[in-house]
Amino acid sequence: MPFEVTVLGSNSAIPTYGRHHTAQFIKVKNKRFLIDCGEATQHQMRRFGVKPQQLDAIFISHLHGDHYLGLVGLLSSLHLQGRKKDLTLYGPRGLDDIISLQLMHSDTVFNYRLNFIRIDTSVHQVIHEDEIVKIYSIPLNHRIPCAGFKIQEQPYAPRINKAKLPENITMQQIERLKKGEDIFDDDGNIIFHNDQLTLPPKKVRTYAFCSDTKYDPTLYQQVEGVDLLYHETTFLNERELTAANTFHSTAAEAAMVAKEASAKKLIIGHFSARYKDIRPFEQEARKVFKETYLAIEGKTFALEH
Amino acid sequence: MPFEVTVLGSNSAIPTYGRHHTAQFIKVKNKRFLIDCGEATQHQMRRFGVKPQQLDAIFISHLHGDHYLGLVGLLSSLHLQGRKKDLTLYGPRGLDDIISLQLMHSDTVFNYRLNFIRIDTSVHQVIHEDEIVKIYSIPLNHRIPCAGFKIQEQPYAPRINKAKLPENITMQQIERLKKGEDIFDDDGNIIFHNDQLTLPPKKVRTYAFCSDTKYDPTLYQQVEGVDLLYHETTFLNERELTAANTFHSTAAEAAMVAKEASAKKLIIGHFSARYKDIRPFEQEARKVFKETYLAIEGKTFALEH
Repeated sequence: MPFEVTVLGSNSAIPTYGRHHTAQFIKVKNKRFLIDCGEATQHQMRRFGVKPQQLDAIFISHLHGDHYLGLVGLLSSLHLQGRKKDLTLYGPRGLDDIISLQLMHSDTVFNYRLNFIRIDTSVHQVIHEDEIVKIYSIPLNHRIPCAGFKIQEQPYAPRINKAKLPENITMQQIERLKKGEDIFDDDGNIIFHNDQLTLPPKKVRTYAFCSDTKYDPTLYQQVEGVDLLYHETTFLNERELTAANTFHSTAAEAAMVAKEASAKKLIIGHFSARYKDIRPFEQEARKVFKETYLAIEGKTFALEH
Repeated sequence: MPFEVTVLGSNSAIPTYGRHHTAQFIKVKNKRFLIDCGEATQHQMRRFGVKPQQLDAIFISHLHGDHYLGLVGLLSSLHLQGRKKDLTLYGPRGLDDIISLQLMHSDTVFNYRLNFIRIDTSVHQVIHEDEIVKIYSIPLNHRIPCAGFKIQEQPYAPRINKAKLPENITMQQIERLKKGEDIFDDDGNIIFHNDQLTLPPKKVRTYAFCSDTKYDPTLYQQVEGVDLLYHETTFLNERELTAANTFHSTAAEAAMVAKEASAKKLIIGHFSARYKDIRPFEQEARKVFKETYLAIEGKTFALEH
């Protein structure tokens, strides 16, 4: 089953060189999520063939314009295109007021239910759970309240080892095996231990999105062992001080977090408009963490088991 | 001196087929104005080489998202790119609250002064005047308060007819002629009537922008004789009822207004996302008003004297 991250926007504050504001589309099995929604995200979704009506939830990391100014436009288009299905929106305090004020002045009532869930950006906790994933907030160190998000698959069931199944096993017993239970006879004695008839479950995959943040030497604890880490990198290391002063990170710092967290792979983005050529970001980061890739718009990163 | 209108966005509610939300850039001599600012207007300005830092004022017709959702992003980019020069923003009641709320949550204070001037959308009156133009509001008939804008050049001075100038005329007397005054001798007797030494002044040019509106048979009175008229046309005449019910116009109706107003030229735009091919709009309008042109994005319309 796919677990994919598609980059829709990769630039920081000012859109330049064809690069857009932050937005990422996440597909996990039959679930569709959007993380951040900078201006023109709905245009970018159309450009890259992402269908906005399929979204189950939207997560906004913080209320700097380059991370959410495309939201009201996207929500309005969903309404105009006939959405009826509920949509859940997670974001910091204030996002609901901003949306409500705009809808009030445009005299608009959506045809679908928009459930707003306020994130406490200071706490690492589960904010969303369904049958496919658990999503955690990650407190980040930015100029205003800001959260990252960790999307983790729910545990997989043990895989039935067909070669080992006795001929007389029942469907009910197979369901028990999938739940991790053992097989008993009528007297309550174990006939088969679960692991005699199953293979270990598939490993759960985890993606962590670390939006705008200063380098934080404790951040790795919350993203430990993730398969894929996105970490912002607004500047190159030559501007380390500027990065710290503006609560942003350098490419080397993003790579340090990936290394400290023993992540499998790192995506870096949120490039400053001062850089036309972004290849030096990859070069700088790879010196610290080899498996680093640029957040190129339209590119999809697949998480492997 | 140029008086030009550049189309930055031409689509209505949902951006489709590469068409964007409403925005127009107006250049009159050394003045630069933006009318409406749909999502991704700053991207469109960059695409078509329009320099946002040169803007003197922005006019927002109404608070439907497709006419202003690019505004906070554009204002923020001006700030980040170091603008110091004042900027005047004209718009309906509520626009200031929307901007203030967003800036509060992003903890942003612009480095330039943004002067907000609230438009009374129910009155046809001068809302802006400088040495180059007078700008009037035009009440429109839409679902929420909505104003159009008429940009009229200030009267030109009489042109000096060099062939007729006497050799002994002084610079002071020429300045008087330019003000439309006659030339007197020391005793207060007229030596030359102004029109003996001048040619009639250049005709002032006028552009009228009629944003979202139902067909209004009285609208022509406020745009009478304009050189260039923009009038929305969301639908073709086959959907006349839909147009009326949604407070929009058809191509034929837009053309009727141009005809009734004796406009010289008509631009039509704000096309519904239901139309991939917009040529039928031009065909329908031209049956009523021959000088009709489609609002193609990136196209510049020059007003002639």
